[in-house]
Amino acid sequence: MTGKPVKESQSEMTELVLPNDTNPLGALLGGRLMHMVDIAAALAGHRHSRSYLVTAAVDHLDFLHPARMGQFVVLKSSVNRVWNTSMEIGVKAFAEDILTGRRLHICSAYLTFVALDEQGNRRAIPPLIPESDDDKRRFDEAGERRKHRLELRKRA
Amino acid sequence: MTGKPVKESQSEMTELVLPNDTNPLGALLGGRLMHMVDIAAALAGHRHSRSYLVTAAVDHLDFLHPARMGQFVVLKSSVNRVWNTSMEIGVKAFAEDILTGRRLHICSAYLTFVALDEQGNRRAIPPLIPESDDDKRRFDEAGERRKHRLELRKRA
Amino acid sequence: MTGKPVKESQSEMTELVLPNDTNPLGALLGGRLMHMVDIAAALAGHRHSRSYLVTAAVDHLDFLHPARMGQFVVLKSSVNRVWNTSMEIGVKAFAEDILTGRRLHICSAYLTFVALDEQGNRRAIPPLIPESDDDKRRFDEAGERRKHRLELRKRA
Amino acid sequence: MTGKPVKESQSEMTELVLPNDTNPLGALLGGRLMHMVDIAAALAGHRHSRSYLVTAAVDHLDFLHPARMGQFVVLKSSVNRVWNTSMEIGVKAFAEDILTGRRLHICSAYLTFVALDEQGNRRAIPPLIPESDDDKRRFDEAGERRKHRLELRKRA
Amino acid sequence: MTGKPVKESQSEMTELVLPNDTNPLGALLGGRLMHMVDIAAALAGHRHSRSYLVTAAVDHLDFLHPARMGQFVVLKSSVNRVWNTSMEIGVKAFAEDILTGRRLHICSAYLTFVALDEQGNRRAIPPLIPESDDDKRRFDEAGERRKHRLELRKRA
Amino acid sequence: MTGKPVKESQSEMTELVLPNDTNPLGALLGGRLMHMVDIAAALAGHRHSRSYLVTAAVDHLDFLHPARMGQFVVLKSSVNRVWNTSMEIGVKAFAEDILTGRRLHICSAYLTFVALDEQGNRRAIPPLIPESDDDKRRFDEAGERRKHRLELRKRA
Repeated sequence: MTGKPVKESQSEMTELVLPNDTNPLGALLGGRLMHMVDIAAALAGHRHSRSYLVTAAVDHLDFLHPARMGQFVVLKSSVNRVWNTSMEIGVKAFAEDILTGRRLHICSAYLTFVALDEQGNRRAIPPLIPESDDDKRRFDEAGERRKHRLELRKRA
Repeated sequence: MTGKPVKESQSEMTELVLPNDTNPLGALLGGRLMHMVDIAAALAGHRHSRSYLVTAAVDHLDFLHPARMGQFVVLKSSVNRVWNTSMEIGVKAFAEDILTGRRLHICSAYLTFVALDEQGNRRAIPPLIPESDDDKRRFDEAGERRKHRLELRKRA
Repeated sequence: MTGKPVKESQSEMTELVLPNDTNPLGALLGGRLMHMVDIAAALAGHRHSRSYLVTAAVDHLDFLHPARMGQFVVLKSSVNRVWNTSMEIGVKAFAEDILTGRRLHICSAYLTFVALDEQGNRRAIPPLIPESDDDKRRFDEAGERRKHRLELRKRA
Repeated sequence: MTGKPVKESQSEMTELVLPNDTNPLGALLGGRLMHMVDIAAALAGHRHSRSYLVTAAVDHLDFLHPARMGQFVVLKSSVNRVWNTSMEIGVKAFAEDILTGRRLHICSAYLTFVALDEQGNRRAIPPLIPESDDDKRRFDEAGERRKHRLELRKRA
Repeated sequence: MTGKPVKESQSEMTELVLPNDTNPLGALLGGRLMHMVDIAAALAGHRHSRSYLVTAAVDHLDFLHPARMGQFVVLKSSVNRVWNTSMEIGVKAFAEDILTGRRLHICSAYLTFVALDEQGNRRAIPPLIPESDDDKRRFDEAGERRKHRLELRKRA
Repeated sequence: MTGKPVKESQSEMTELVLPNDTNPLGALLGGRLMHMVDIAAALAGHRHSRSYLVTAAVDHLDFLHPARMGQFVVLKSSVNRVWNTSMEIGVKAFAEDILTGRRLHICSAYLTFVALDEQGNRRAIPPLIPESDDDKRRFDEAGERRKHRLELRKRA
């Protein structure tokens, strides 16, 4: 290992669902999954921006299915779009059963992060040029979500 | 204490920010705050519905300011609107400084929960009739957020 | 939110009993409840004194009933009496059942805290003037508990 | 190791103070120490009674000095007296500095535990016959503490 | 996502080093890294065997460099060899710096797991046929480590 | 308590197995036990060396039996041999059942630690002179394990 930098705007992490992560019906607590989603998003964000990050907003985190105690939660994250000092990161989470190996898509989330330097001031994020059709679709949808969020804030 | 039931659709909880809850810049991790927000929302939701709950979605969680290590996080939650077996719960979080007592509004969030019985089937939630003007505004806004969310899902 | 200081010598916090907080019979561990009681007492103490605090002693913490996994623990704390740089804080804890909403009084505790400045030296606490009859009763009882504690220490 | 039962009414345990266990001044949180004290007391109590236990009360837990991050906390516990289905257990805690090896007595506590069978009913605890002069002093003092506690309860 | 089984004998997981994971010099605690290594190895083991697993032994876990607070720990695991009901899994851990993106190889470990069914009885693991030269080298080395371990046990 | 230094190269610590420490079959997770083993070894190492320590390697950690939720894990550690700035520490772990008091030997482990000063540089460890026959056997076996480890590293 020569210590060369990893350059990725897509990342993957895995967690095991422990008893303390579950509710009385044995399903993963929503808040624990949100915590995993935030760390997974930060992973992709740090790799793209190489800066400190703070979570600025969460849009449309949808819980589609419960994960169960003893299952693995696999989280895939990708930077969808960059705006000067902020970026949108998408996270898809799957529950993987230990015995059958089946993976269920349990959660999709879109988070906005702001990049900071060591003094806590906002700093620029390297631009992200969408390449594949999938990249372009994510890029466009991130723009729509942002527009909607700013409108809501104006009204507030 | 006679053990009489508490009937509240508005609740409050408080947490102390411990070292493990913070990032390298000393601010509360976004994911830890999301976990607190989920528990705080569940508190109001359980009190209103008296049933098991699962988090179904998070809309527009905005992080306005960071909370710091050693501060209290005060979370106020209220049921905004009920639709048969689901309900929207709003949470407002404040960072309260130990030494000065100042409270800063750090986060607003809207979550949707689904009520379940002990077999894990959806069950009806008692209706919520908005009374004050504030209640009515929350009720109407919850309707708009839901409409927007269902539109997004249709397109997906 | 204008950031104006909160002035309260009475506070309330709420916790959810998670699997790791329980013993093999499914009841909340005594030590976990003590930890919650300490944080709840500190909450009232910080609000009254606006200083750093250390726990100096616990008197007569009584566990009246067990709390169960999945219940909420609601903790109410109030400053009972102030002596120059120390104060007694009382905490009453309740287990609130998610499904029935019933609250059971599970624990009463009296703790003494000492106020410190940033260098760790003792500092004065603003006096507390008992107003209601309830306040006065608490004030008198705190005096008796302190007298008893100092006698025990003299003998040791 | 032949699996022969351990018979001890005195026990010792050791914990390392981690960052999350400390307050903003770097000292061990009172509530975390209380949690350690409860586990340490249970250790001696289980060894003497060989039954399930619940903490019934804490008397006169005194915090004499703070423990610091990175130090070891050594807790010594002993059963002081047995009353049919309950017993008093004393705990003495020390902070041991990693670099100098010095031990400071930081906390003394007296806890009452009740023994339960697997159905949660109270069950008898084997009697404890004090042998040394130290044992006898602890036995007598436990009696005084109990008398005082029952008086306080009667008045409440 | 159709829920089709994942078939992999190589896996990757990522963790963020939080304050509570570090010693007084700010480096990741050895025991915390061991815990991550065990979960990472189980991840590859579950994916290969699709059964419950228990850790049977750890051979030659070497800590080459410290990881620091706020860094990511990336753990890569692969099943090296299968013997009827047990298998050797290798784990390589890297510390990835958030700001520079540099990855340092911090730990290599070899663990043996045993597969169990739901009653806790040993069950067969699907064989692993080494394909690449790298696979074959790992396969042979696992055999040597096992031989050495069994010799040590015989002498004990 | 006069604060006189404790001089011991053998130590003992005890932990309670909580729900979050266990796998879906109810047995203590291998990684959690490794974490306990590391802390227990550090306890003996700090007491012998009175310096900061980092874990350098684990050799032949064998899991002989599972520990169960609600049991105590008792860990005994001793410094086996010192080489200038490093030392081998052996740990034996036992599961102690609360109700029967039976102790089962569940794990043996040998760890190598390196001593550091406050700047993170290696520093000398006081020599350990084996006294009893048991001490001498441990001393000799530690030498063999080290020789084997250095050979493996040379080949890598």
